[in-house]
Amino acid sequence: MSTQQNNQNQFDNKAHAWSARFSEPVSELVKRYTASVDFDKRLALFDIQGSLAHAQMLTQAGVISQQDLTDIQRGMEQIITEIQNNQFEWLLDLEDVHLNIEKRLVELIGDAGKRLHTGRSRNDQVATDIRLWLRAEIDQSVDLLKQLQKALAQLALEHADTILPGFTHLQVAQPVTFGHHLLAYAEMFGRDIERLQDCRKRVNRLPLGAAALAGTTFPIDREYTATLLGFEGVCRNSLDAVSDRDFAIEFCAAAALIMTHISRFSEELIIWMSPRVGFIELADRFCTGSSIMPQKKNPDVPELARGKTGRVTGHLMALLTLMKAQPLAYNKDNQEDKEGLFDAADTIRDTLTIFVDMIAGIQVKAEAMRAAALQGFATATDLADYLVKKGLPFRDAHETVALAVRECEQKGCDLADLSLEALQAFHPSIENDVFDVLTLEGSVAARNHIGGTAPERVRIEAQRLLEQN
Amino acid sequence: MSTQQNNQNQFDNKAHAWSARFSEPVSELVKRYTASVDFDKRLALFDIQGSLAHAQMLTQAGVISQQDLTDIQRGMEQIITEIQNNQFEWLLDLEDVHLNIEKRLVELIGDAGKRLHTGRSRNDQVATDIRLWLRAEIDQSVDLLKQLQKALAQLALEHADTILPGFTHLQVAQPVTFGHHLLAYAEMFGRDIERLQDCRKRVNRLPLGAAALAGTTFPIDREYTATLLGFEGVCRNSLDAVSDRDFAIEFCAAAALIMTHISRFSEELIIWMSPRVGFIELADRFCTGSSIMPQKKNPDVPELARGKTGRVTGHLMALLTLMKAQPLAYNKDNQEDKEGLFDAADTIRDTLTIFVDMIAGIQVKAEAMRAAALQGFATATDLADYLVKKGLPFRDAHETVALAVRECEQKGCDLADLSLEALQAFHPSIENDVFDVLTLEGSVAARNHIGGTAPERVRIEAQRLLEQN
Amino acid sequence: MSTQQNNQNQFDNKAHAWSARFSEPVSELVKRYTASVDFDKRLALFDIQGSLAHAQMLTQAGVISQQDLTDIQRGMEQIITEIQNNQFEWLLDLEDVHLNIEKRLVELIGDAGKRLHTGRSRNDQVATDIRLWLRAEIDQSVDLLKQLQKALAQLALEHADTILPGFTHLQVAQPVTFGHHLLAYAEMFGRDIERLQDCRKRVNRLPLGAAALAGTTFPIDREYTATLLGFEGVCRNSLDAVSDRDFAIEFCAAAALIMTHISRFSEELIIWMSPRVGFIELADRFCTGSSIMPQKKNPDVPELARGKTGRVTGHLMALLTLMKAQPLAYNKDNQEDKEGLFDAADTIRDTLTIFVDMIAGIQVKAEAMRAAALQGFATATDLADYLVKKGLPFRDAHETVALAVRECEQKGCDLADLSLEALQAFHPSIENDVFDVLTLEGSVAARNHIGGTAPERVRIEAQRLLEQN
Amino acid sequence: MSTQQNNQNQFDNKAHAWSARFSEPVSELVKRYTASVDFDKRLALFDIQGSLAHAQMLTQAGVISQQDLTDIQRGMEQIITEIQNNQFEWLLDLEDVHLNIEKRLVELIGDAGKRLHTGRSRNDQVATDIRLWLRAEIDQSVDLLKQLQKALAQLALEHADTILPGFTHLQVAQPVTFGHHLLAYAEMFGRDIERLQDCRKRVNRLPLGAAALAGTTFPIDREYTATLLGFEGVCRNSLDAVSDRDFAIEFCAAAALIMTHISRFSEELIIWMSPRVGFIELADRFCTGSSIMPQKKNPDVPELARGKTGRVTGHLMALLTLMKAQPLAYNKDNQEDKEGLFDAADTIRDTLTIFVDMIAGIQVKAEAMRAAALQGFATATDLADYLVKKGLPFRDAHETVALAVRECEQKGCDLADLSLEALQAFHPSIENDVFDVLTLEGSVAARNHIGGTAPERVRIEAQRLLEQN
Repeated sequence: MSTQQNNQNQFDNKAHAWSARFSEPVSELVKRYTASVDFDKRLALFDIQGSLAHAQMLTQAGVISQQDLTDIQRGMEQIITEIQNNQFEWLLDLEDVHLNIEKRLVELIGDAGKRLHTGRSRNDQVATDIRLWLRAEIDQSVDLLKQLQKALAQLALEHADTILPGFTHLQVAQPVTFGHHLLAYAEMFGRDIERLQDCRKRVNRLPLGAAALAGTTFPIDREYTATLLGFEGVCRNSLDAVSDRDFAIEFCAAAALIMTHISRFSEELIIWMSPRVGFIELADRFCTGSSIMPQKKNPDVPELARGKTGRVTGHLMALLTLMKAQPLAYNKDNQEDKEGLFDAADTIRDTLTIFVDMIAGIQVKAEAMRAAALQGFATATDLADYLVKKGLPFRDAHETVALAVRECEQKGCDLADLSLEALQAFHPSIENDVFDVLTLEGSVAARNHIGGTAPERVRIEAQRLLEQN
Repeated sequence: MSTQQNNQNQFDNKAHAWSARFSEPVSELVKRYTASVDFDKRLALFDIQGSLAHAQMLTQAGVISQQDLTDIQRGMEQIITEIQNNQFEWLLDLEDVHLNIEKRLVELIGDAGKRLHTGRSRNDQVATDIRLWLRAEIDQSVDLLKQLQKALAQLALEHADTILPGFTHLQVAQPVTFGHHLLAYAEMFGRDIERLQDCRKRVNRLPLGAAALAGTTFPIDREYTATLLGFEGVCRNSLDAVSDRDFAIEFCAAAALIMTHISRFSEELIIWMSPRVGFIELADRFCTGSSIMPQKKNPDVPELARGKTGRVTGHLMALLTLMKAQPLAYNKDNQEDKEGLFDAADTIRDTLTIFVDMIAGIQVKAEAMRAAALQGFATATDLADYLVKKGLPFRDAHETVALAVRECEQKGCDLADLSLEALQAFHPSIENDVFDVLTLEGSVAARNHIGGTAPERVRIEAQRLLEQN
Repeated sequence: MSTQQNNQNQFDNKAHAWSARFSEPVSELVKRYTASVDFDKRLALFDIQGSLAHAQMLTQAGVISQQDLTDIQRGMEQIITEIQNNQFEWLLDLEDVHLNIEKRLVELIGDAGKRLHTGRSRNDQVATDIRLWLRAEIDQSVDLLKQLQKALAQLALEHADTILPGFTHLQVAQPVTFGHHLLAYAEMFGRDIERLQDCRKRVNRLPLGAAALAGTTFPIDREYTATLLGFEGVCRNSLDAVSDRDFAIEFCAAAALIMTHISRFSEELIIWMSPRVGFIELADRFCTGSSIMPQKKNPDVPELARGKTGRVTGHLMALLTLMKAQPLAYNKDNQEDKEGLFDAADTIRDTLTIFVDMIAGIQVKAEAMRAAALQGFATATDLADYLVKKGLPFRDAHETVALAVRECEQKGCDLADLSLEALQAFHPSIENDVFDVLTLEGSVAARNHIGGTAPERVRIEAQRLLEQN
Repeated sequence: MSTQQNNQNQFDNKAHAWSARFSEPVSELVKRYTASVDFDKRLALFDIQGSLAHAQMLTQAGVISQQDLTDIQRGMEQIITEIQNNQFEWLLDLEDVHLNIEKRLVELIGDAGKRLHTGRSRNDQVATDIRLWLRAEIDQSVDLLKQLQKALAQLALEHADTILPGFTHLQVAQPVTFGHHLLAYAEMFGRDIERLQDCRKRVNRLPLGAAALAGTTFPIDREYTATLLGFEGVCRNSLDAVSDRDFAIEFCAAAALIMTHISRFSEELIIWMSPRVGFIELADRFCTGSSIMPQKKNPDVPELARGKTGRVTGHLMALLTLMKAQPLAYNKDNQEDKEGLFDAADTIRDTLTIFVDMIAGIQVKAEAMRAAALQGFATATDLADYLVKKGLPFRDAHETVALAVRECEQKGCDLADLSLEALQAFHPSIENDVFDVLTLEGSVAARNHIGGTAPERVRIEAQRLLEQN
């Protein structure tokens, strides 16, 4: 083999990076269709982080020299600078983030750069990059979810005593405190935090060392690399390590649930801001107007967030479809894992960020809430409970109150508007103390157990959330 | 009201475009979160096309003057030039493609530009833009599907006589011709064409004139606008026109089916190119290699196409989720309709384009196909049919052949390898002509009805496809 | 081979129906896992219909005798009776509807029954059954959608003059008539009808004759069978005919859109019935109460219908996932096509039936609607249009009205409450005729073009729908 | 109010269970549409378990008497017996499992039965039932997944030394051991176990006590009830407790991943059993035949399992759609959570059960695997690694081997077939020891690090799995 051949390497071949075996370059369309550099370049710094740990491990294992490592570190430092200064030239011809960086490294430091890829493959390299990136995204999202919980808890504290109608079926059910209502979302986001943290455990394992699919013949020390990169463990099967993306699907499922919770909250904000309801006002900076109707102030942010639920659910479905029936090990299909995953992470990060800010800007219209709670027999259950305490079986009490409600509806009045005599006509055990039970304040205060809507309980829960985050 | 105020219009307000009603500008994050200009600017030329037709109709209706129209046409011409030369400055502050263009128009031509929005709203404007754009995309995709059918028919003609095993359950079932196999996909893509054409009818209706949601007080002539824009009809209800996106969902469903068909074809290409099967070879320009395994030649294009099925299915799910339970009329959620829709259209266009080219580069390995067809008792059904023609009820014939197959399996031979005596042991009616039936050629030639695999039939069908497209 | 063996056929084998080739019966769990008879027996009558047409074609083609046909017809008649009287014994051991019926036929009529399966396979048989069934379902759903349109049109006629606020972003936008609002849904359901009818064309093609995958060696006449069964054409490729289910996916996509439209309508019914809005009341027979809150009357039907949207969307996703990357031709995966498809059809049929009835029972509270329309500056656009007609460019008019709205908001009044002098302070061109424009009736009546909300227009459109259906 | 009225309770009303407030019974169709008893009766025993714990807590809290509790326990005991003996009469008129059981209880024990519903609602009751049921399902699925891991590990141990080609892109990549390949799936199912266990934590919290939505006025002790039912904690917000189903969605997401892993394994089993590959044979009891092709033996079970992936993914999508944008608190939409959830749980349970059995019946064809591994230059990477160890930078080694592969392809031979001289022509550093590297055994044995394919490593990992489960 001539020196010339020896010196020539796959990067010198303009058309593609693997070269010698091929008799025909890929077409321009194919190149564009199959290249990922346009979107995977956002993994660049994680790719370098992984490469540096790999090089350090190779050095310790005696596979490359200390000088090689020093060269690689120097080269990578420069590349980081170039990327951060937008001076790095990304080439579509080099397909992906890995080959772009490696080629530049070889330009900068020569043979040491060519040694970096020893004992690994792009298959385990990209799996490592995604995991490093996703771990950082998870941490950021968990932090935002905690901020969101705090924002909710803060507003809940301020409105521990503010009463609005609790709805089921969008019909008035029982009075609840607005603080209690807000804390329902804090609970949901709390479970979202747990889910992300559970997912993180499975993300945070090292695939590097799986090489193409079977491991490598070099004396690698995967646990050392894992330690360097902060991974909690190593993937224990190389075929699995390079081919499965269940951790990404799990993240998208958690993200879809976050957005689903956001969609529920958004739905309520939109309804609450609708003029017939008028429970809240959102700060102007989260609303937009109309190009034709001069009077409009639209809750664009919650609407758009509600719409973005579909986007993340869609990415989840995309990844599940992608992975369905894929044989082992790595297939090119998996390149499709990234864009949806990136977008899912971006969507929850932006949405959570904006919601933290938006909650602080919610203006509560307590009188409108109270007026609504006084409509719709919200304390009917309290009357039934009252009768039970007087000795009626619950089912009979329920029926008795239903008859009273029916009469009120016909008269166009509320239960509290009935006279004691009128009430006693429904059941003789009713006494004057019934009117305490029929007030909104009496109703909410009486539900003072864990999970109940009582103001005292709201304060305890809100305080707990503020302290723990 | 001072002259100053009067001259001031919503575009002069840096922070947002609707202005006077608001006391606080939107925050930078909100601006970025809610703006669509980054992706909806690709609708620019369709937006201008719609505006020009709208202006022409307003002129004819006497709402604006001929001079206004001339000014608008001149201004739009310049804007088109600026966009095409990448000189147009897109501002995030102006939210979307519509306001960006309108503001530039006002800069260029003054008051006439401010009159353009008379009798319309961004709600009906964007619905019009998307429909114009989508109609063009559908036409392009239909054309590509027809090219794909032709490429398949061409290859089918060349391989009308090439025999490979037809599989069910990935087990050898009966011999089929490769041409027949290819034409199965031509049929699928044929239905995809029909679906796109059916969808086009519902896309091709004019929403303009619905204004914000209720129509307009100006004496508009929607049918005239529809004629100018080549729409086949007008949306007959303004609330529906601005708020529903079922046409986009229908397109995504059709696109998901196209990709599903592509995924099936890709799966087969990948299996056929796997060395144990070895039925075909793809041209090098559709394959890539490995960064670690020097011998690899991977069918990247079909793999990636198979993976992209998930992407389009995901967009379909995203839009269905988006639209679920949206009250009338327009809600900001609907801004989320675009990115997924754009990507679905791009994905099928790119994929179909590359497949048209790739099919032409398929190298068929007829001997490997034939060898495979000779394995697995592919003509067992022919033997059963033979017995039926000799008078056995089909169910008895089926059972008789099953016993013969069992014996062959034990002996490690094919049915055609059994002697006449051995065959007659299974049924006395078997005679020497049975061996014609047991050949591959005899088997395929005998299935010469509409839809059958006979070479003659393949030629007829392929010719039909070549002529009709 | 002994006579005994010859007489023995696959149905005599208890454990499974294909028998002789196998050395081990399927386990009980496998039998249950793979059997479809529990759900595909609902195809029974369509299966028989297909078999009778197949037998008639075989007779005409000379493959079976006239006597065979007569026997088959007689046997099938009895089987139909048994099924209709719930006397037919379905056996899990016989896997599916086809083998259950065929075995019973053989019991009843002997050899002629064994000849029925000549020239076909379960693969094309089941594809035929599903298409026959689905065609009937489509026809039924189209009919229900037309009834729904009529019910909407009838109510729209009654409320052509009833005014409620038209919402965008759930904020008051412009006044609309309730009739116009209802007709928006009639338009959506109109497109749903079109989609089902387009889908029907692709359902209504005959797969029978494709046999297992390659066609058959018998001299079949598929066009004759198609005519007998009312199919508009024949599937032109046997591999495609037995393996693709795109027609089922297309139906599910159309069904998902129907449910999406239902979900939007349901959302509005639920909001309208919420006490703070109070626009309508649903008849008691569509509502349920609470086991604990005696005063509740919940709009269960629209809520449940809204929830069922997910179900149908889920089936669509299931079928797309099922079909993804399936190689030709038939694979057992396809057995999974049925349950979701059945449930999708059932869901839309039940839901549409109940909605037709429910619409007739909607009680409209016109005063609540009117009161809501008077809140929220619904006629601001009319004022802007008024100014444009006085000569202001639209953009300036829009800004002028925005300032007026702002002042009203500060004063807590409506635009119509401002004096002429106050209005003239915003623009001197305003005259006394402005107050006509600011009334709700003036606003809606002025939008009298195709698609507009004017009462006259509503009557025309409603009448059109009532006449065409 | 008369005694008669007082005695009458809601169950006496034939038409519906909440009664007095309503003037019209629900129609038959509505009853059928809204009733859930047909499917939720499978929760019956969990419903009773929850009721008994609730009654015990009420007794301890002094809300009901010890005699009431004794009566309730006696009544429930009888109801359990009736249900288990299929003697319980389920009435559609009573809507759901809760009212059916409660009514029977009242029949059996009178007033004590009417007191049972004190301090709870169907909203928190059904949430409790589902969680109890799902917890049991999770435990069962975790157990099955562990059995599956063991079955895989057992087979892996037997085939720690069996070599087959490892594929990427379905092209031969590097030799791997069959044991290693199997353990890749054991890893996937291991993560599935983790996910179910993580999900279980969120399932295992008590919603009871949330009552309808706001908690109750009775002095309940939720932590005591939680302890009685084995819950790890209580839901801390009543509105959240009755309305969110994220735990069910999370379960479906985990189930979808299980099925996705099953689909990948199934795809491989199907390909491996295809005659051109022929790596394995499945036991006859997992296969079925053909109604037309007597020779067929089809891998029905893996095919059907692959198809069922869609089903579970569909249920996930259904639940996400269901929950999207639902306002607080309970809405009737949530009744739709059950059928999909039940079916998802059933599907994974049946599928896992059958796979455990099927794996034990896999017959491995080691020679076919070996023959395939010898085709396709599987040891090319080993040659590249060899050159690196001789001092070449990896990128140069990769290119050198690519040239050697190209020459072999042209010659139609394998790398190991080249003479030493021929190899040295590619690089002079190659010596006689290269041939150890080019053997399959040498290749796999060299990958002996954590996660590598070496037989020794397979044994360690398999043993670990057998011991831990």
